[in-house]
Parts: sequence; C-alpha cells; structure tokens
Amino acid sequence: MAGYSIGIDFGTLSGRVLLMNAATGETCATCEHVYSHGVMDEILPSGKKLGVDWALQHPQDYLEVICQAVPAVLQQSGIPPEDVIGIGIDFTSCTVLPVKRDGTPLCFLPEYEQEPHAYVKLWKHHAAQPYATRLNEIAAARGEAWFGNYGNAVSSEWAIPKLWQILDEAPEIYQAMDRFIEGADWIVWQLTGREIRNSCTAGYKELWNKACGFPSEDFFAALDPQLRHVVDEKFSRDITPVGRKAGGLTREMAALTGLREGTPVAAGVIDAHVCVPAVGIDGPGKMLAIMGTSTCHMIMGQEEKQIEGVCGVVEDGILPGFYGYEAGQSCVGDHFAWALENCIPASYERQAQERGINLHQLLREKAQAKAPGESGLIALDWFNGNRSVLMDADLSGLLLGLTLQTRPEDIYRALIEATAFGTRMIIETFRAGGVPVEEFYASGGIPQKDPMTMQIYADIIRMPIRIAGSEQAGAYGAAMFGAVAAGEAAGGYASIFDAARQLGRVKEIVYRPNEGRAAVYDRLYEEYKQLHDVFGRGGNDVMKRLKAIRKIKTEEKRDG
Amino acid sequence: MAGYSIGIDFGTLSGRVLLMNAATGETCATCEHVYSHGVMDEILPSGKKLGVDWALQHPQDYLEVICQAVPAVLQQSGIPPEDVIGIGIDFTSCTVLPVKRDGTPLCFLPEYEQEPHAYVKLWKHHAAQPYATRLNEIAAARGEAWFGNYGNAVSSEWAIPKLWQILDEAPEIYQAMDRFIEGADWIVWQLTGREIRNSCTAGYKELWNKACGFPSEDFFAALDPQLRHVVDEKFSRDITPVGRKAGGLTREMAALTGLREGTPVAAGVIDAHVCVPAVGIDGPGKMLAIMGTSTCHMIMGQEEKQIEGVCGVVEDGILPGFYGYEAGQSCVGDHFAWALENCIPASYERQAQERGINLHQLLREKAQAKAPGESGLIALDWFNGNRSVLMDADLSGLLLGLTLQTRPEDIYRALIEATAFGTRMIIETFRAGGVPVEEFYASGGIPQKDPMTMQIYADIIRMPIRIAGSEQAGAYGAAMFGAVAAGEAAGGYASIFDAARQLGRVKEIVYRPNEGRAAVYDRLYEEYKQLHDVFGRGGNDVMKRLKAIRKIKTEEKRDG
Repeated sequence: MAGYSIGIDFGTLSGRVLLMNAATGETCATCEHVYSHGVMDEILPSGKKLGVDWALQHPQDYLEVICQAVPAVLQQSGIPPEDVIGIGIDFTSCTVLPVKRDGTPLCFLPEYEQEPHAYVKLWKHHAAQPYATRLNEIAAARGEAWFGNYGNAVSSEWAIPKLWQILDEAPEIYQAMDRFIEGADWIVWQLTGREIRNSCTAGYKELWNKACGFPSEDFFAALDPQLRHVVDEKFSRDITPVGRKAGGLTREMAALTGLREGTPVAAGVIDAHVCVPAVGIDGPGKMLAIMGTSTCHMIMGQEEKQIEGVCGVVEDGILPGFYGYEAGQSCVGDHFAWALENCIPASYERQAQERGINLHQLLREKAQAKAPGESGLIALDWFNGNRSVLMDADLSGLLLGLTLQTRPEDIYRALIEATAFGTRMIIETFRAGGVPVEEFYASGGIPQKDPMTMQIYADIIRMPIRIAGSEQAGAYGAAMFGAVAAGEAAGGYASIFDAARQLGRVKEIVYRPNEGRAAVYDRLYEEYKQLHDVFGRGGNDVMKRLKAIRKIKTEEKRDG
Repeated sequence: MAGYSIGIDFGTLSGRVLLMNAATGETCATCEHVYSHGVMDEILPSGKKLGVDWALQHPQDYLEVICQAVPAVLQQSGIPPEDVIGIGIDFTSCTVLPVKRDGTPLCFLPEYEQEPHAYVKLWKHHAAQPYATRLNEIAAARGEAWFGNYGNAVSSEWAIPKLWQILDEAPEIYQAMDRFIEGADWIVWQLTGREIRNSCTAGYKELWNKACGFPSEDFFAALDPQLRHVVDEKFSRDITPVGRKAGGLTREMAALTGLREGTPVAAGVIDAHVCVPAVGIDGPGKMLAIMGTSTCHMIMGQEEKQIEGVCGVVEDGILPGFYGYEAGQSCVGDHFAWALENCIPASYERQAQERGINLHQLLREKAQAKAPGESGLIALDWFNGNRSVLMDADLSGLLLGLTLQTRPEDIYRALIEATAFGTRMIIETFRAGGVPVEEFYASGGIPQKDPMTMQIYADIIRMPIRIAGSEQAGAYGAAMFGAVAAGEAAGGYASIFDAARQLGRVKEIVYRPNEGRAAVYDRLYEEYKQLHDVFGRGGNDVMKRLKAIRKIKTEEKRDG
C-alpha cells in the first residue's frame, strides 16, 4: 500500500494544498484557494477604516482552505482517504490572533466584529512599530541576554509588540482573549482539537529559547505591569519541537475534509522554514531564500553567532542539531505588484492585448531588454520597511536617477535589482559575522515563474542559484513533515533528515552569474550600500520624519 | 484707424500667434500650430538614432507656424492686413542652429540631413554637458571677470557649449556653417531678410555684455585654438537692443503670410523675457515665473549682484535701466507629463472614461484630495537636471517615502510640490543675495490651466500669486514689442514702458497661501533642502555616477 501525505501552506493571499506520494515525492494533486477577504489593510468587512500600516486577515479564510482545497486534492488525485498517512502545516509568521479558551477567534463573536484588534494581525501589520521601538529600548537598557539572538532588535511584526498594541489600544480585547496564538498553531488546534505550540514560531517570533525559556516576568513587567504574567496568561510554556506529531484529525474535521478521523497531524512550522528540507538542505552553509511577496532567508550554522539584523538564531530552529538563522526582506514581490498596479500605463495594456500576452509578460520582456545600469536608476527596496539587516519598519522606498527618459520597465527592473541588492546585503552581513554562505537555493513563486529576476539575482549576488524542485515548496515541505508525523511504520519517515534525503528536490536549471553584468552590478551595489547606510543608519532620518507627518495627516483626515 | 499688432511665440512643442488691438490690448484672434517634428530626442526623421540627452528640432516647423498660423489669425479676426502695424517674435532659448551665409539651415541641405549636428539644438539638449563642464573649469581657472554674472556656471544649454560639441563631434558641420544663430534671430532673418542679433539672447545665452562685449579671444582659444575667432566667424558683434525694430517684412514673406510688405518686425526676445511687460511689471522686486514644460524666473534689481545659480544678470536685459536677472527650472510641466505618460494605470483611464472626464482631470481630482504630507512622499524635481540654483544637467530625479500604499496621484502631487520647492529655493537664494522678491506673478500654460498647482505653489512659497491676464502671455508680450517696433506715429508705442503701462494685464484671481498648509510645507521644505544639498552639492554624487554608467551602457548598446 502506497502512503500519501498532505501539506497545507497558508500564504499571504491564498492557501495551497499538495498531496504527495510519501515514498517517491511525486506530487499527485495541488489546489490553491484564494482568501475571500485577502489582506485587509484599509477597511474591515463592515467598512470600518483601518489606520496606517495595518494589515489584518480573517480566520474564516483559513478554514475555507481546509474545507475546500483538501477535498479538492483528494478528488483530483483519486487517492482514497485511508491512504493519507499524515498532514503537515506551514503558515506565514508572525501572523497571530486573539482567541477564547476553546480556540474561537474573537472576531467570530458578534460583540467584537467591529473591533480591528479582534482580527488576525498578518505578519506585515506594522502598526505596532512604536511598541517594538519601546520594547527594544527597554531590552537594551536592561541588557537582556536573549536580545543578541535577535540582532538586538525585535521586529514590529512579532508577537509581543502586536500583543502590546492590543493591550494599549483595545484593553477590552486584551482582557477578552484567553490565548494569543500563531495562525500555524491555531489551524493545528482546529484540526486536532489540541493547542500545540510549535518551537519554530515560539523561538523565532515569541522570544522563547530552548535552553532559557521565555524572557523573565520582570522584563515583561518593565514593558507594562499588566504584561508581567503574559506568558502564562496568553501564551504557553509547553512548546512542542517541530517534526513531532501534534495529534490526530478530529471527527468533525474528518467529516469536513473527507479524510479519516485520527489522521496524524504534524506540529506547525513557519512557511519559510518548512522549505529547507524540501530542497534537500541538510546542513550548514546553504542558504535558502523563499521569495514571494516578501523573502525569508534561512541558513544553518555550527555555532551561535550574533549577526546584525538577523531576525533570530534558534537552536534546533530549522533542523535539529544546528543553529538555525533567519533573516528577511519584508517586501519583495509586493514591489513588483505595486509597480504593476500603479506604474503601468494604459498604452502598455493595449500593447499586451494586441500581442496576446499578459501585462506581466510584456513588462518582463521590456525590462529584460535593458542592460544593467542602462536606466540610470537605483532603488531602495523598503516599500514595506526593512527587516534585515536594519530591522526598521519606519523606513520607506526610494527611487533615484529618474529622468524624462525613465520608462515603467526601468522602474520595474530597478525594484527587482533593489531586492537583489538587499539579499546581497544580508549574505555579506552573515559572512562578516562568521556564518559561511556557500550555496544559494530559492523557492517560492518568483523563482518558479520569473527567470529574468533569478538571473538578475545571480548576477548581483555573484553565486549560482538552484531552484526548488516543487512549484509549491511550502506545501511540499509541509507534506514531508506530515510524513514524519505519520512515522516510519505507517509508510512515512523516522525523522525530517530521512525525509530531506529521500524527498528533497531542486530543478535541473541553475542560474549562474555573468561576469560582465556582475561587474556593473558591483558598482551599483556600492551606490546601494551608501544610500542604505545614509537613510537606514541615521545619516538622514527623513523617511521616519515623513512617516510621522503622514501618520498625523492620515489620522487627522480619518478623524475629521 | 485702429492699429493691430501680431505676436508670434515659438515654444517647445508649438508656435502660437496672437493678433492684438494695439490700443486696447484686446486679443482679436489666436492660433496654435503644433510642430510636425516635435522634439526629436530619440531619432532623426530618417530614423537615425540620437544619443542620450539629445533634443533637436526641425526649422521647417518654425516656418510652418508663420505660413499657416499668421494667415489663420488674419482670417479668423477679419482684420485687413494693412491695419497690422507691427510683428513681434519671442522664442525658446538657447535654441540654436547652424546656417549658411544666406540663412539656409544646414539640415535643409541633402548632404547634411543624416547628420544630427546639422539640426536645431533645442534649449533642453543636454548632451553638451561635458563641454559646459570644461568651459566652467577654464573660466574659473582663468578668473574670467564675466563669469560671476552667470553664477559662475555656464549651462550646457547655452550657445558656446553647444557649438563646441559640434566642433568636437562633427567638425565638418562646424566648418560648413557660416553662422550659428538663435532661433529668435533666425526667424527674424527669415521675415526681414536681415541678420539682426538681439541683446536678450546675446546677453543671457552667448556671454555678451553691454559694457564689455564678448569674452576675449584668448578665453575662446583656451577652450580650443579653433575657437579663437568664433565670435567673428560664427556669431556677430553687432547686437541690437530689444525693443528696436529689426526691419520690414520681405515681399516673399508678405506673400506667404498675407501681410503687407514692409510691416515693421521687432528684434527677437526670449520667450520668458517678453512676458515681463505683458503682466505689467515695470520695475524691481516683482518676480515673474513662466511655467510650462520648464520654468523661467525673471526679476529686475537696482544693482548688479552675483547670485548663486542665476543663469544671468544682464544690464538692460529685460527692461532698459535695470539689471535683469534670470533663473530657471529645467523641468516643471515635463514632470507632470512624464507621470501622466508613465505612471497612470489603465484602471484610472477606465475610471476617467466612465466619468466622462479626461485623465488629467481625474488625476488632479485625486491629487487635490490629499493633504500636504499625507502621502509621505518627497521628490527632487531634477528629471531634466537642475538649472537654478545648482546649474547641473547631470543631476536626476528622486522619489523618497514610497510605500505599498503610494498611489499614482501621490507621485503626481509630490512632483508638483517638488517643483514648487525648487521655486522657493530660487526665491530664497535671490533674497539671500540681496535681490528683493516682493511680489510673484505667473504666466504660461500651468498657471492658466491648473489652479491646484498654483495653490500648492502659493502655500509652499508663502506668497500671493498673480496670474497673467492673457492665456498667451508670450505671444501677447511679443505683440507688445511689435507695437513698439511700429512706433507711436503708426498707432503703436514709443517705448516698451509705455506699452507695459497701457497693455500689461493680470487676472482677478489671486492665489493666497493658507497658513495651515504652509506650516506643513515648511517642514517638507526643510527635508527638500537637505536632500537638495546632499545630492546637489557633492555630499553624494551618486546621480552623476549613475548617469555616467547609463551613458556608457546606452552607447554600448547603440554601437553594438
């Protein structure tokens, strides 16, 4: 009897379900379900306006993925439910929601549906920046030992700043919630009926450490006396290592999905981290970039180093036995989508129609015809702030070198190049900090669909780039964890290492740097670094001042 | 018998002809003729490619204006040709062309029609920047006395750098030309059969000085020994003051236009300068901004001061008896046209269509709904370099503060604001240099058509703005000079002062600054100044380095 595993990958705009043959890695069926509510960054479903830098989601969307896309892959593949040996989950992070003791999201309750703080705060909700800033000041002032493991900067995207914002702005929501939980763990709770907190999100996003646990109650009390017992009141000290089984599928969920009751469900994993074994990475020196709306960079090292702007170093955080490092760029594909939505004239749309190609194809074609440096443009890829290495959500984007000859494809290409310069900055920071980066792998939507961008990346980082074998590396990796949760006896695997060695895949194509283009990009990168340091490290804090004015003006308009 | 005067205003994209009642100032008819060849900045009519920063025109277009639009205003108004007492001309500057001894443009000769250097170099041709840079170094090193009158910086737009570029890149064209002449003077030559060089273009664009004449032959020889006798070989030392009659209409031109032979034609004037009397300015302290694709700022003072980045101070340069100062912004409306062409998505075009308004209206409506500072954006208005106060064509545009929430109207508004900040920079530089700026007038297309932009300007410069009474202030002012050329006895005027007092006009509307908005703009202006100084005064020369790379890459592609 063949064993099959299901991986469910919860992304920013949709959930993707993949059904895999657990022995061969063959993808038997996939299904994408686009979230009905998408990203709510302007209004709630009721029409209520949100503030600047907000980004919410609706948990109903996650349930729809399970109830619609899981049955779809079963039907598509014709695999009988009893042959599905395990389910794995991965999720964007830190995407968190307030829930009641039984797991009910506060936003499901009529009394809170008008309250923005009752909804899921998506990873890219940046309105908690003032809390992150204050937290960082306090952690620095107190000399907290754990602080260096996060590059001496806690991001506004993480759980504590987001929770603190709720306490401050909507204390009734803070009081009403019994738990504050990651989407990954909430969905596992829905599937298994058990609240299982995974070590990956706890380590990278909630300041938990395998050796030392959470920061002290004195630290939390220094933020706000009401936060002294926050870990016990809203989180949990019971942390389950990734790669473990969380529980079995409930009867209710079995009925909704068409799977058998009791099907093993793996503990949740962050969407980036789950991709590492999916490309076959089983040790240090090999960086994986998961490139989509944003990019996460994962790499393992033999030693614990403190690296500037690294989002976290967590022992056993990626694979057991190594120090897992995570860095990131908070806006990558979102830049390109922004350009496509805002900077492409109707004349281009007509051209694309006449030629029977889509707008994205036309734009890529035009951008590809340009040589490095030909446009004279350079950009800073901070349209959604900077995660690594500056960890500052109050930064913003820059375009420099504009002329009357600048065309939309020049801006588009400059934004692609800027994100690649941002990746090079991260690689160089790792190397300077003593963490070798010897190979580079990429997964996610961009590497699969956009050869031009991958070639630009190879030219800019001066490294060959290998691409994940699965178009759905997240869902594929999640399915690998599902097979590990099932265990060897059931046709799965004893460990994630065994699964990585058996099922890890890259494509045949390798993007290799071209010396001529790389030499031009070296010069542009020097310019990028200068601008990066001036605007990002305090030389000129104009971006922060403009954002402060913008915030006041937006609020004045909303209130008046 | 009523006397009528015709003004012909040669702009960047079209020529405008206006027929005026010389006694009352009433505009009896106007006609615009769009140039067939427009601005040639990518290819010649033959398809031959042009280099980076080139901008040419075809002199045939100017003749078409005369032969088509002059008869049109006669026909439109029903005024008999014998009642037309004078003709005045204004022209963009420094717009120059190489011609034979009889006035034939070199580009009209079949042997040169493939040669870009045989065409008219439009004012915004910036490819002579290396020659301007070298000229400035030599003038500074030699301590040339005249240099300070031009802010110690000769622009790449002016006649000598443009001519030097020809000598260097196309010596056969340099040899073949007998004269190198301003468009204003060339068209007067076509009308009268006489080569009359006017004091306005000679003073502002060709380094001529009423008291001292041209720079010395030693100076020109220091540029290139072949330039030693350039004044006598290609220009002329015989300079006619503005306000004088240049001659009478030739028989041939009379036949082509329908006017009477011998009709007095005034000496040419720069398009900006001709507008000063048109709004009734007759003395110091009153700045006039002519706002179109670019902006010229004219102001008169009682004393000769050397002001940073002022394009020229010329005694009697605007009106007799005063020192005329000229400053400018090389790209204003061109920014907005750029945004409209490159940054407006098809979805906006559809919105405009559905609402039955044009795209420009829709964009203005959306931009107007934004409060100062609300977008968080700031721009540098250097898409076509910076004329005043930095005088550097190698600078380029910047957009800072971009986020995923940035919309096309935000970029559009930021560009408008940036050009207003640029104007404030010029005003403050004049004041700091001891030239009072007490009133502000505006003429040109933008003040006539775009109230939103004018209000933003008033808020940013913190001065009331008065608008030229004529929608065609250039052609209107030119017609005033035509009436002066006719003389008092013929129904015209004895001097341009008399004409200014009798015919100068402003509209009833005055744009006044709003304190609340002005206060926010003060803060944004401080940011603008900082960026202006860092990128414009050598703090970070990234713009120049990017342009250098761009030039190499563009040439590589063109050549290979």
